[in-house]
Amino acid sequence: MTKHILVLPGDGIGPEITAQAVKVMEVCRDEFGVDISWEEAPVGGAGYEAAGHPLPPETLAKAQAADAIVLGAVGGPKWDKLEDISLRPERGLLGIRKELALFGNLRPALLYPQLADASSLKPEVVSGLDIMIVRELTGGIYFGQPRGIRTLDNGEKEGFNTYVYSESEIRRIAKVAFEMARKRNKRLCSVDKANVLEVTMLWRDVMEEVAKDYPDVELSHMYVDNAAMQLVRAPKQFDVMVTGNMFGDILSDAAAMLTGSIGMLPSASLDENAKGMYEPCHGSAPDIAGKNLANPLACILSVAMMLRYSFDNAGVAGKIEQAVSHVLDEGLRTADILSAGRTQVGTVEMGAAVVKAL
Amino acid sequence: MTKHILVLPGDGIGPEITAQAVKVMEVCRDEFGVDISWEEAPVGGAGYEAAGHPLPPETLAKAQAADAIVLGAVGGPKWDKLEDISLRPERGLLGIRKELALFGNLRPALLYPQLADASSLKPEVVSGLDIMIVRELTGGIYFGQPRGIRTLDNGEKEGFNTYVYSESEIRRIAKVAFEMARKRNKRLCSVDKANVLEVTMLWRDVMEEVAKDYPDVELSHMYVDNAAMQLVRAPKQFDVMVTGNMFGDILSDAAAMLTGSIGMLPSASLDENAKGMYEPCHGSAPDIAGKNLANPLACILSVAMMLRYSFDNAGVAGKIEQAVSHVLDEGLRTADILSAGRTQVGTVEMGAAVVKAL
Ligand SMILES: CC(C)[C@H](C(=O)O)[C@@H](O)C(=O)O
Ligand SMILES: CC(C)[C@H](C(=O)O)[C@@H](O)C(=O)O
Repeated sequence: MTKHILVLPGDGIGPEITAQAVKVMEVCRDEFGVDISWEEAPVGGAGYEAAGHPLPPETLAKAQAADAIVLGAVGGPKWDKLEDISLRPERGLLGIRKELALFGNLRPALLYPQLADASSLKPEVVSGLDIMIVRELTGGIYFGQPRGIRTLDNGEKEGFNTYVYSESEIRRIAKVAFEMARKRNKRLCSVDKANVLEVTMLWRDVMEEVAKDYPDVELSHMYVDNAAMQLVRAPKQFDVMVTGNMFGDILSDAAAMLTGSIGMLPSASLDENAKGMYEPCHGSAPDIAGKNLANPLACILSVAMMLRYSFDNAGVAGKIEQAVSHVLDEGLRTADILSAGRTQVGTVEMGAAVVKAL
Repeated sequence: MTKHILVLPGDGIGPEITAQAVKVMEVCRDEFGVDISWEEAPVGGAGYEAAGHPLPPETLAKAQAADAIVLGAVGGPKWDKLEDISLRPERGLLGIRKELALFGNLRPALLYPQLADASSLKPEVVSGLDIMIVRELTGGIYFGQPRGIRTLDNGEKEGFNTYVYSESEIRRIAKVAFEMARKRNKRLCSVDKANVLEVTMLWRDVMEEVAKDYPDVELSHMYVDNAAMQLVRAPKQFDVMVTGNMFGDILSDAAAMLTGSIGMLPSASLDENAKGMYEPCHGSAPDIAGKNLANPLACILSVAMMLRYSFDNAGVAGKIEQAVSHVLDEGLRTADILSAGRTQVGTVEMGAAVVKAL
């Protein structure tokens, strides 16, 4: 049966990079016989412009009906001043995650040997780096109630958010992480702040409980401050890391930046049945939008992740990954990963090179 | 009038490093005529052993009466299993912070040129690094109510904490940060997650409001995920950073680790009147406790910070800092900062070398 994909270009460089991802999807369909179809819909700032909301009802309906989603990026200065924050582009993204229950966020931090130079860390510290961060994506302080800004009796304002997790929420992300560790090097580090926050004491307890079902996986615990430190000091000590929504936001970005080439990193956000949304780790980069400067590789690699995780097609996923590796070997680089002696190409040319390599 | 200092050795390597800090205080008193006296009291695990509580009432009373506090470090595996978490060593530390209203936490991340090699980052990325992180220390999610673990109607447990800041709490830490920026390079970066968390939207608004009183300081805002990334990518872009308790915990540790020598970094926690507690950024390192291996320099530099911030004695503070620089120039290194061609010394020998240099 044909798998239907919803492509959400979004804002900034989003449309440029999803255009290249679509070219790769065409090759998958036409050359490799992958039975897929797709259509596009607006989200984020584009959703607001088209339909007055960052997640227009039609876009949400299409996302719910689709078998998988490929997202470019959302956000831009144009919408940062919107007084009603429920209309800001980010809310579109958070809305899809929540409505589709995409609680399992996989963020690999992988160093491409061809790009080792791009890291701000010493080569010996990062060479061969391959971490998978599993971030809980539909709970925690991002969605906890009550939340808001209220006026106190003394007249001053107070802002408040709630960091909350139930056992079942923790258990389901724990399973995703243990399964992931089992497929990799069988080491899982759970990150919390159990010396201060009760919610993460429960997190730690549930991790220990789920660990009993995975005797082949070695579970360790680390406080979030130490984890941030260890990522800088000796990142190769990690295999799989699992943590909540907020800590995962921070640590996955730090980990991605260790590779020096965040323009290369895809991510997956999965529901209980491995239906997923796939998107680059990087943002919408409004400053370079429309200039044919953006790196489309993270978005193209998101297509590979989709084939692997949602469509169980590791074969074609591997082909895409090899094609990306091939263009890097050829010395082609977009501006963000350019180094001396390499050839600078634009977004379109990079996409075309991957298609050719395929 | 004689200034009275409370020395809290704490646990692990704490007693060894405070012993060296005390030797430096002796020189300050006997050679430089600084009018100080001191006594010791137990805190953390040591408080629990001595008096059944990580913050014994006598220790708290002495802390309240003192003009300043020098702390070693708290915590260790021996007390991690305590069922009643209100008895764990960390609670002693959090208790002093809260009871003494030490809301202004200053955490410098300074690269010593002599130790540039120790960083996991490339020399050009970190050489000359000098960031001051101002962390709010008595509010936010660390102390927010309600908090706890409850049982839901369906029988499962749920953990919850509250991230809360009032305008006045934000305003007073903002002032500390703006004053700090004014004394340095006049650039302040406030870190929040205002695209998701209401409490940090208020944070951002209050920062903007306080900024009006500091037209000479350039205020910028950054989301915490981006800040973690930028610290890895290009840390020298920062002068002063200000953020809440939890983000500050994470970012200050990451920033400290950029220098590669967290054993060198002191910190200050100040109240409204610049009464303060001074302590190393590093922890209690139970694995090397009692072996004469610990680096006493962060604790010694904490004494310098105390002289500068609480006793308004920048002259003698500078002498201590120069003495530390001098022993590094001589090539003396404790194990944590050892590199080829340098001379390894123990905790006691390092302390003695600083005393001699003074
Ligand atoms: C845009 C923002 C709401 C989002 C998040 O914080 O989750 C982004 O930083 C991410 O990590 O995908
Ligand atoms: C020990 C712990 C409670 C403490 C904190 O989280 O504040 C420590 O990590 C610190 O940064 O001083």
